[in-house]
Amino acid sequence: MPLSARNRIEGVVKAVENGEVASTVKIEVAKPVTITAMITKEAVEELGLKEGDKVEAVIKATEVLVSKD
Amino acid sequence: MPLSARNRIEGVVKAVENGEVASTVKIEVAKPVTITAMITKEAVEELGLKEGDKVEAVIKATEVLVSKD
Amino acid sequence: MPLSARNRIEGVVKAVENGEVASTVKIEVAKPVTITAMITKEAVEELGLKEGDKVEAVIKATEVLVSKD
Amino acid sequence: MPLSARNRIEGVVKAVENGEVASTVKIEVAKPVTITAMITKEAVEELGLKEGDKVEAVIKATEVLVSKD
Amino acid sequence: MPLSARNRIEGVVKAVENGEVASTVKIEVAKPVTITAMITKEAVEELGLKEGDKVEAVIKATEVLVSKD
Amino acid sequence: MPLSARNRIEGVVKAVENGEVASTVKIEVAKPVTITAMITKEAVEELGLKEGDKVEAVIKATEVLVSKD
Repeated sequence: MPLSARNRIEGVVKAVENGEVASTVKIEVAKPVTITAMITKEAVEELGLKEGDKVEAVIKATEVLVSKD
Repeated sequence: MPLSARNRIEGVVKAVENGEVASTVKIEVAKPVTITAMITKEAVEELGLKEGDKVEAVIKATEVLVSKD
Repeated sequence: MPLSARNRIEGVVKAVENGEVASTVKIEVAKPVTITAMITKEAVEELGLKEGDKVEAVIKATEVLVSKD
Repeated sequence: MPLSARNRIEGVVKAVENGEVASTVKIEVAKPVTITAMITKEAVEELGLKEGDKVEAVIKATEVLVSKD
Repeated sequence: MPLSARNRIEGVVKAVENGEVASTVKIEVAKPVTITAMITKEAVEELGLKEGDKVEAVIKATEVLVSKD
Repeated sequence: MPLSARNRIEGVVKAVENGEVASTVKIEVAKPVTITAMITKEAVEELGLKEGDKVEAVIKATEVLVSKD
């Protein structure tokens, strides 16, 4: 499905932590780079997200900051 | 400077494209993964962003979506 | 493609306006409700977005505000 | 109150689920379209949000992605 | 109009810069603190934003990062 | 560390409230202006955020809405 989001990074779910309505999902996209997503627990359940799943982290370009030393 | 943002990914600026108030910055974070950021042109100028700069893409966890096939 | 975003609303592109790096896309999701998206011009070009296209507006739950009179 | 946000969609609250600091609010904006918002529990309490409330889902154009089959 | 956004900061417009579809608005919220917003040019025109206007900068809590030295 | 985010506002932490995965942090940036951030609990713990800490609220320009009466 073509998506306008400029950033789609493949990875593997390393951890899912559920709160009551929010969850965090840690996605290893390259060693040693892990991307953390905070999404609804409902999304975690609907996608059945669990350790080992192959997923993509999807990020809109407007959400990315740039830092430079 | 410690930052609450969960995602800070090192990379090298591959391209900067300036509009009148907005700009896009392409950051190669691993071969062949490039992250695109849309930021203000003012920020591009203030940081002096140009091809070859070592930077970090910084992304808050709440901004990351997860897609699963 | 299952996506964690809670909000995916079908509609038809009514207008695309391109700046130099940013574009706005107006999507009629129901009469008379139109959703406006600001995305990169690169995404408009890559998806070939034009009037009449059937698309979805995709919105992460964390990005929605609620207003009540 | 005029607001720069391009997207203000009227609807009725169908469900509110509270976590400890975050809450999700489901807003039926048209049958069968429901928009889910994740907001602070503090906002839910301050607005007194509950099932049946007439509200608006407010979304900034920069937060909308576009998907096209 | 009650709004779920936790952050509404009063200020005065100090500058508006228009691109083709995006604009930046600088809002002085306290001396010497200025908040910059990037919004659609359409919103600038619809609100008639210009230097000297009394406005509020509205920011959802999920969009705020925290940095600590 | 130079950062593309246009808005960095100094303040003092007045309250931290932790959920299971999300937390809210209240930052007094000027009397009587308080900015609320919702971040991951992991970030709160990693930064050791607590009442009295001097911090900055960091906000990307694309995340700011403008309201005008």
